[in-house]
Amino acid sequence: MNNKLKIDLVEESQQNSFPKNQWFVVALSKELKDDFIARKVLNIPMILFRDPQGKVTALEDRCCHRGMPLSSGHLENGQIRCGYHGLLYNATGQCVEVPGQDKVPNKAKVKNYHVIEKQGLIWFWYSFEYETPNSEVPDYPYHEHEDYLYDGDVYHYDTPYQLIHDNLMDLSHLAYVHLKTIGGNAKIHMNAEMKVTQGDNQVVVKRHMLASDPPPTYSMAYPFQAKVDRWQEIDFRVSHIRIWTGAIDTGTDSLDNPERNGFNMRGFHAITPETENTCHYFWTMSTNPQHDRERIAKVVIEQTRLTFDEDKVVIEAQFKNLKQFEHKEMVGIHIDVGLVRARRIIADLI
Amino acid sequence: MNNKLKIDLVEESQQNSFPKNQWFVVALSKELKDDFIARKVLNIPMILFRDPQGKVTALEDRCCHRGMPLSSGHLENGQIRCGYHGLLYNATGQCVEVPGQDKVPNKAKVKNYHVIEKQGLIWFWYSFEYETPNSEVPDYPYHEHEDYLYDGDVYHYDTPYQLIHDNLMDLSHLAYVHLKTIGGNAKIHMNAEMKVTQGDNQVVVKRHMLASDPPPTYSMAYPFQAKVDRWQEIDFRVSHIRIWTGAIDTGTDSLDNPERNGFNMRGFHAITPETENTCHYFWTMSTNPQHDRERIAKVVIEQTRLTFDEDKVVIEAQFKNLKQFEHKEMVGIHIDVGLVRARRIIADLI
Amino acid sequence: MNNKLKIDLVEESQQNSFPKNQWFVVALSKELKDDFIARKVLNIPMILFRDPQGKVTALEDRCCHRGMPLSSGHLENGQIRCGYHGLLYNATGQCVEVPGQDKVPNKAKVKNYHVIEKQGLIWFWYSFEYETPNSEVPDYPYHEHEDYLYDGDVYHYDTPYQLIHDNLMDLSHLAYVHLKTIGGNAKIHMNAEMKVTQGDNQVVVKRHMLASDPPPTYSMAYPFQAKVDRWQEIDFRVSHIRIWTGAIDTGTDSLDNPERNGFNMRGFHAITPETENTCHYFWTMSTNPQHDRERIAKVVIEQTRLTFDEDKVVIEAQFKNLKQFEHKEMVGIHIDVGLVRARRIIADLI
Repeated sequence: MNNKLKIDLVEESQQNSFPKNQWFVVALSKELKDDFIARKVLNIPMILFRDPQGKVTALEDRCCHRGMPLSSGHLENGQIRCGYHGLLYNATGQCVEVPGQDKVPNKAKVKNYHVIEKQGLIWFWYSFEYETPNSEVPDYPYHEHEDYLYDGDVYHYDTPYQLIHDNLMDLSHLAYVHLKTIGGNAKIHMNAEMKVTQGDNQVVVKRHMLASDPPPTYSMAYPFQAKVDRWQEIDFRVSHIRIWTGAIDTGTDSLDNPERNGFNMRGFHAITPETENTCHYFWTMSTNPQHDRERIAKVVIEQTRLTFDEDKVVIEAQFKNLKQFEHKEMVGIHIDVGLVRARRIIADLI
Repeated sequence: MNNKLKIDLVEESQQNSFPKNQWFVVALSKELKDDFIARKVLNIPMILFRDPQGKVTALEDRCCHRGMPLSSGHLENGQIRCGYHGLLYNATGQCVEVPGQDKVPNKAKVKNYHVIEKQGLIWFWYSFEYETPNSEVPDYPYHEHEDYLYDGDVYHYDTPYQLIHDNLMDLSHLAYVHLKTIGGNAKIHMNAEMKVTQGDNQVVVKRHMLASDPPPTYSMAYPFQAKVDRWQEIDFRVSHIRIWTGAIDTGTDSLDNPERNGFNMRGFHAITPETENTCHYFWTMSTNPQHDRERIAKVVIEQTRLTFDEDKVVIEAQFKNLKQFEHKEMVGIHIDVGLVRARRIIADLI
Repeated sequence: MNNKLKIDLVEESQQNSFPKNQWFVVALSKELKDDFIARKVLNIPMILFRDPQGKVTALEDRCCHRGMPLSSGHLENGQIRCGYHGLLYNATGQCVEVPGQDKVPNKAKVKNYHVIEKQGLIWFWYSFEYETPNSEVPDYPYHEHEDYLYDGDVYHYDTPYQLIHDNLMDLSHLAYVHLKTIGGNAKIHMNAEMKVTQGDNQVVVKRHMLASDPPPTYSMAYPFQAKVDRWQEIDFRVSHIRIWTGAIDTGTDSLDNPERNGFNMRGFHAITPETENTCHYFWTMSTNPQHDRERIAKVVIEQTRLTFDEDKVVIEAQFKNLKQFEHKEMVGIHIDVGLVRARRIIADLI
């Protein structure tokens, strides 16, 4: 990363809505091939493209001349040319050509944002206190782990980002929302023991379901013998949530052994606010099928997509209703403990 | 009706928009069969359904847990289950099951609204001063009178409810708005003698048109001899308007005899605000054809529907224009006397 | 023009948005044949129609009775009848009939606006200080000049009117926006010498491109020999802009001779605000083909239409982006000199 990049201050108007000094996902690497992406994240309209060396660049999506979106223009060898009067910008945001004019004015530049591509994800450092990031880019090894195959997508939600956190922080909704896909038995989910632990800007919710029948997807992917011990581990990290679910043959290992075998699915869920009331939901699903790997990984992605489509319907309906009942208190139940802690962490960061 | 039902106070924010202590129609009985209805009335989002005994229930359309609309869930034997985490509510609004949790929190309940079904109409007691209604549910005998056949529908309007009152309080617009349907001669309508009388929260406008030709619908439904004496009686009752129109053979009876014979149509028009600027218009039309009753009653409903479609176009155009000319004075003409008094009654009730 | 017409004061709320004491185009004559037009201009909803003598009339689009748009009614011999209760208005805005009522109330009238039809354009005098116009209706002789054929259209823009001025005050965007139509070589446009002169509420930008190749449209319309000297003259007049472009055979005449020959196109661009953030764009294009005149004039109109479609996409994208970056400074470049002066003139008039 070019250390000379000036990390611009986040505008004052944006200071109070979202947790600062965080790495947020702004794109999947696979989205950014030959063309640019225009995307608003954290109230910042950005254009993302690759410079001549293939490195990812994020600029303010606005020509400094007459305010045209740069994303109405076109790329020329890793530089972006405005589609109105033809001003050309390089990957640092500096205007390098004003057609019909010899000298480029000093002021002719746009903001450049701090982004890093790593393991198939493009991360943006969102801050207003530090010029350079004060934390490492998150590591997500399952996107480059030989046991796992993965794919994913980005969904746009017309809801505040925290409603998706709420949804993911407890999976007991599976039995009601996902009847048609991964639903399963309500009682088993609801009654499984749940452990919640908390770290530094982190909440972990673990649920173990012992000696249960393996769901069809699991049996398809792994030669289970009979009953299985299943687990769900939800790991909240402010800008994203990691959800690890899986099963082992009952009695073959402990669910407390982090190296345990069996079939498992590692869901990566990065929820990045677009505005206060809309967000982007970047997700991937990594699985370790034991045979017929490509086909089974693909089936898992298809099922995951259907499941997340169902969530979107529910959460958008919830948000519409919350707007109708703005000042109503919510009644807590026992499954809320994870989401309550996650919301407290974010409240402290804003 | 269960007397123990607690009638919740109307929210403070809703106190100043609509006339209080009134019975408003919120549904036609025929709308509420096996499934629920979700409908916002008087700024209150409601879910309406039948309890195990078939009695109509109205609850706040909001799960007390995470604010999900209950109408995204499903009915289970006259109880409603939320579609997110499965909380189950009975017809009083009490949560009776929280999946995965033995004890239901005391607070886990939603508002129950006071509704009564009578004569094919579902009435809601809208109040903020009284716990129990201080007036009887309106009686509308023509929905169960052997001489009459009726049907109706509910229309949604993107206009404030009082613009529909204005429209109905004088029928002289027929000649201009309903040229294609029930229009008739402008001069006859406009020049007929009009009497306006006023009662307690009631305005009655009567118009008699003597010795005129019977309109085609009338001739079809009744064996008129030649000229007829026609009447229009508009009876405003705050939450609804009753319009009685009809004709008798000229010279056979007096239009002042309430028991007079002839063909007549009894229109029931309940206009219930949805919000300040939108409303529901529930209407039925009861007629007394002398022969071929089913067919003629059906023709009348079809013609009524076309007529009301025309009104909707006009009134929504009027409202759009009123927004453009917000502070302009209106010039009164003689036909406005009914609507002026109706508006005064509502102003006094708000 | 009837001198007795009372020019109503512009409402106070509209005083600060648009330049006053100007003639604005509100319609093309060809739009106003047998029926009326309803159009909001400068925040004033108008209905335009021809009186019994064919003279154009503009009234407030609002019945004085219940606020219905008069444009929901119909014309009767050069008078407009409201579609709700049938009030009839003559071309001065006076109500001349209230159905069912002998006397028309004194107050029953609507505003009449000062409009004049001239040379295929309908002009409206927009003012709040003067009862009668203090300037002549603009003269546009090319709509009745025997050398020229013309046609045009009206476009609706979801942008403030001045963004269209900006676009027209410099044509260097041709090379980027109009690649598919009239684009041409970016360097030639950008580097041509530009002269800007200023008059009373007038800015003229002239650009000469000597000894260049004639564009295909020009060659089609005129028997050019080889190289041509081309010109662009942009003449800003507050409510409209006149753009004269053309070419002569190089060496046959001076581009400073106002009587010079050659093929030329006279664009008339009247941009009339609808509201602060929307506008109407009335345009015509007059050309002087030397042969096959009707066909070539038609081709020019088709190409012009495609070009203006491209501008609309760009300018509406620009406006959306400006709303995202409200308080950002714009960086000026040399081609902005015309638009800067035009904006200064308008700022002084508001």
